[in-house]
Amino acid sequence: MTIPEPEGADLKPSYIEAGQPFNRDTHYIEDRLTRDARDGWPVEPGRYRLVAARACPWANRTAIVRRLLGLEGVISLGLPGPTHDKNSWTFDLDPGAVDPVLGIERLQQAYFARFPDYPRGITVPAIVDVPSGRVVTNNYPQITIDFETEWVEYHRAGAPDLYPVALRAEIDEVAELIFHDVNNGVYKCGFAGSQKSYERAYDTLFARLDWLEERLATRRFLVGDTITEADIRLFTTLARFDAVYHGHFKCNRNKLTEMPVLWAYARDLFQTPGFGDTIDFEQIKRHYYVTHSDINPSGIVPKGPDARGWLEPSGREALGGRPFGDGTPPGPPLPAERVPSL
Amino acid sequence: MTIPEPEGADLKPSYIEAGQPFNRDTHYIEDRLTRDARDGWPVEPGRYRLVAARACPWANRTAIVRRLLGLEGVISLGLPGPTHDKNSWTFDLDPGAVDPVLGIERLQQAYFARFPDYPRGITVPAIVDVPSGRVVTNNYPQITIDFETEWVEYHRAGAPDLYPVALRAEIDEVAELIFHDVNNGVYKCGFAGSQKSYERAYDTLFARLDWLEERLATRRFLVGDTITEADIRLFTTLARFDAVYHGHFKCNRNKLTEMPVLWAYARDLFQTPGFGDTIDFEQIKRHYYVTHSDINPSGIVPKGPDARGWLEPSGREALGGRPFGDGTPPGPPLPAERVPSL
Repeated sequence: MTIPEPEGADLKPSYIEAGQPFNRDTHYIEDRLTRDARDGWPVEPGRYRLVAARACPWANRTAIVRRLLGLEGVISLGLPGPTHDKNSWTFDLDPGAVDPVLGIERLQQAYFARFPDYPRGITVPAIVDVPSGRVVTNNYPQITIDFETEWVEYHRAGAPDLYPVALRAEIDEVAELIFHDVNNGVYKCGFAGSQKSYERAYDTLFARLDWLEERLATRRFLVGDTITEADIRLFTTLARFDAVYHGHFKCNRNKLTEMPVLWAYARDLFQTPGFGDTIDFEQIKRHYYVTHSDINPSGIVPKGPDARGWLEPSGREALGGRPFGDGTPPGPPLPAERVPSL
Repeated sequence: MTIPEPEGADLKPSYIEAGQPFNRDTHYIEDRLTRDARDGWPVEPGRYRLVAARACPWANRTAIVRRLLGLEGVISLGLPGPTHDKNSWTFDLDPGAVDPVLGIERLQQAYFARFPDYPRGITVPAIVDVPSGRVVTNNYPQITIDFETEWVEYHRAGAPDLYPVALRAEIDEVAELIFHDVNNGVYKCGFAGSQKSYERAYDTLFARLDWLEERLATRRFLVGDTITEADIRLFTTLARFDAVYHGHFKCNRNKLTEMPVLWAYARDLFQTPGFGDTIDFEQIKRHYYVTHSDINPSGIVPKGPDARGWLEPSGREALGGRPFGDGTPPGPPLPAERVPSL
């Protein structure tokens, strides 16, 4: 695997660029962990560490899938703190500010162990090969798919099929729309460098949320009648919507709580084991409001909104659906991985 | 009248000061316009111009009282644009960017005509003596009281009594609580220089809003059974709550729309002639998001929230009350003073 040619050797995370729409760098380290070890990284229990800050929506996907599939005993979890400096996420929540398995303070060290001149952002999620201390991949859209399709042998008994063969085309199609308009759409609002690019992103975002509001009015989940990869991808953005995107990113036509279908859909998932138990609202707020100093120079973190509404019944069971298909919900999180309760 | 000693000859509006709570400079030019002309400024129709930007909540009070009392033909209205530079509000909305009556481009000119070394912020509302071009007063809490009590001879037929003698003590008491905790409380949240001072202001603000939610559950207006000065003072902050204070000032425990009593109370007033017809949401948003560049460096103005909810029926008539007491509602605004409709 080679890194695509660097487009700019600037390690500073680029947030707002004056006059420009937000342009996410979507070049990742694209190695895969597979049964056939085609990239040199075999599926092997106990060998890899998933580094996934609670704050980050892209990392959050991998934490949810790991929980739902019961991979906790097979792939360990490293948890950087909510804020990062100009160059790297850091393990500032761990004793001594060192990741206890990797023995590093900064995730950057694992990137540099792999590529000494790694020129891009140090992102989470990242999978690190524990014996060598090197990052294998940070290609988040593939990480969850590989958890679902390559690590099958190590799934827990009763693990759901999150990427059913018969539904993959539809899942991919829906997820693609949601990525551009919603997952990345909120960033396009928040990091817009001009009024025009902000308003375009805002219109696209809310048009897509209206479309989802309608789609989910009659079906409990996005694709098929069970939870799939598509739901996980939408959920991690919805979980951050009122806490961060509404105010900080100016996605403020309305709060999520003002869209009755989407709000109930999000609560239904939140209350499903494996979803809400990966959400830490304090870390989420701290991450965005402290890290993006060009949007929030004071660094003050809003006290609101009141998050207890997430625990109110959703009533979505009335739509039918079988959340885990023929499978079962996961058990409780590992004690070391518990998030504060609401 | 003498200006209190300057505390700092800095004309730059002071927003956030690192580590400090927000401290509003409440020293104003305290001359009054009275029947007995005790400060040299007699009540005299056609002589004075009220300069009151649509954007500003303190100026908004004076515009509402002028409307309710029918003083439009007696005291003219100058309307600076929503944004101001470091030194002054400007008449950038007027043809040639010059106030057509005062013949000035910057409100500062009228302050300097009065005090060549005026050391404080150039604030609205300000009353300007048209013949001399000099600012008479910018002491907004007194301006509305004097409109109500000194200009009685020029009130329209059917003008309400907004400051009834028998209720003045209670109006003053309620208005004082609302000033510190709500009117200025939102600024204390938004301009807090530390997490601690922000959280203290936030807690105080929402405790007071909860108190108001309870107080207004059984009575249609704040004091007595008619609209008074107290309602006007609360209204101008509520009108800006979801549009600006919720996101920009981080007053985000909940939106106003999530407090059913206060939201219905605010809509009831908004739909009363003299209130909603002074509100220009676009100017309000532009003012805060563009002027406070230390809070919103990008200068991007949020497109939301959807303001059409302000027109939904409030149902508050069921609580009784007589909005205008023995009086009547004002007629429509002067054509030149119309705000865009929702």
